[in-house]
Amino acid sequence: MIRLATVQFQPVYRDVDANTAFIVNAIANTDADVIIFPELSTCGYFFVSRDEVGGVAESVDGPHITAITNAAHAANRVVVCGFAERDGDNLYNSAVIAGPGINTRVYRKTHLFYKETLCFDEGNTGFFVVHLPHLDCNLGVMICYDWRFPESARTLALQGADLIACPSNLVTHIWRMAMPVRAFENKVYLAVANRYGTETNTGEDVSFNGQSAIYSFNGEVLTSANAEETVTLISEIDPSATRNKQFNSINDIFKDRRPESY
Amino acid sequence: MIRLATVQFQPVYRDVDANTAFIVNAIANTDADVIIFPELSTCGYFFVSRDEVGGVAESVDGPHITAITNAAHAANRVVVCGFAERDGDNLYNSAVIAGPGINTRVYRKTHLFYKETLCFDEGNTGFFVVHLPHLDCNLGVMICYDWRFPESARTLALQGADLIACPSNLVTHIWRMAMPVRAFENKVYLAVANRYGTETNTGEDVSFNGQSAIYSFNGEVLTSANAEETVTLISEIDPSATRNKQFNSINDIFKDRRPESY
Repeated sequence: MIRLATVQFQPVYRDVDANTAFIVNAIANTDADVIIFPELSTCGYFFVSRDEVGGVAESVDGPHITAITNAAHAANRVVVCGFAERDGDNLYNSAVIAGPGINTRVYRKTHLFYKETLCFDEGNTGFFVVHLPHLDCNLGVMICYDWRFPESARTLALQGADLIACPSNLVTHIWRMAMPVRAFENKVYLAVANRYGTETNTGEDVSFNGQSAIYSFNGEVLTSANAEETVTLISEIDPSATRNKQFNSINDIFKDRRPESY
Repeated sequence: MIRLATVQFQPVYRDVDANTAFIVNAIANTDADVIIFPELSTCGYFFVSRDEVGGVAESVDGPHITAITNAAHAANRVVVCGFAERDGDNLYNSAVIAGPGINTRVYRKTHLFYKETLCFDEGNTGFFVVHLPHLDCNLGVMICYDWRFPESARTLALQGADLIACPSNLVTHIWRMAMPVRAFENKVYLAVANRYGTETNTGEDVSFNGQSAIYSFNGEVLTSANAEETVTLISEIDPSATRNKQFNSINDIFKDRRPESY
């Protein structure tokens, strides 16, 4: 069993120092093996131009992300944390994956939502799974609107993910119907770390709806948050329990697939 | 707007004459443009060998299926009805699609559930969409356990389905979480015609849980049945309302897909 945490909070809009301090503190003080933070945790969400994002973005070896990955190693905890990434002239809505026993990796959001398309480049990492050797856990990451496409979680699960981390800044409500289905249709754990609060830019408000949750591989809600609270959710999960996709004496949800028909 | 009906009933186990009479009568007396019947409506469900299915199977131009397709034409209604199909030495868990303005088609179930694997051959038609010219409706069919695979509804929707008919003999309950998600993740109407009752074979019982439903393209339940009742559900739907997959000024759930990442 491993202890999985998702942190729900309200990042301070455009204040990377303050958010990084919050994240580093949460890593040090959360008794968990894996900790998931929301999308764009370091900087807030609602940007409407590349210039705006450029002001808060940094590379994965920049000072704030380094502070976060150092905190992960110092606490011996695997961290998944959303941030605005700069890579040369490119800008990505990314999540860093860092901690004991693994090389630091970055997932770049595949499906961009709304005005993110004005700010970020489409992710070019694709979906991938990171094996966490000391936890015997295969971790995949998708970010927020990626959930809307069943192909995202499916691709991760077919690559062997036991656990999908979903750093999010969710603004609609239908995700709460879909996330448990994403979990059970792939028989994987799914951890949604959502933020809450409202941000305003160019006269437009965007409100995030919290309700972060950890779903078991059968779609059950193991733990969930309210719509507006700073809270850390923790569940004990058994990654190895996801790997046998057989559910009766004959059927197996992966072996029964017929990709030639899709 | 078109009138869409799903018929929930309890087929008489192995009595093809009685079930066909029920179906033909329902076609004549249901005021709808499209009528969906459950999986294996003509013969019942729980067979455990090819010999058993062979005793109730017939080709699409056999007498009972001909009676059903004739009834569809006579009533000027499109019918989707599950039956056990014989094609030479092959046996399929199929649905006939017949009615005004279209050539009769057969969909053969792609994903076989449990002991169906002992009785039927895997479907070889793939998923396809039938254009109903007089209704301006693009109809796709998946059968029961096909729902378990997001690829089924996705494949139909990407082929242009406005409406997915899902003749079913559902025995678990998680489908009720997934079906509305199948509808809204593809922005299609989805009609589940389930049966109810229990069948016993070789000392094993299989119980079907009714609760047939028609879902709108946003996942809303337009109408639904109880777990154990013979009932015809009817909804008025607008197939053309499904075709614009854009949901804000920027995002479109189909154009936003990135198949190179799946």
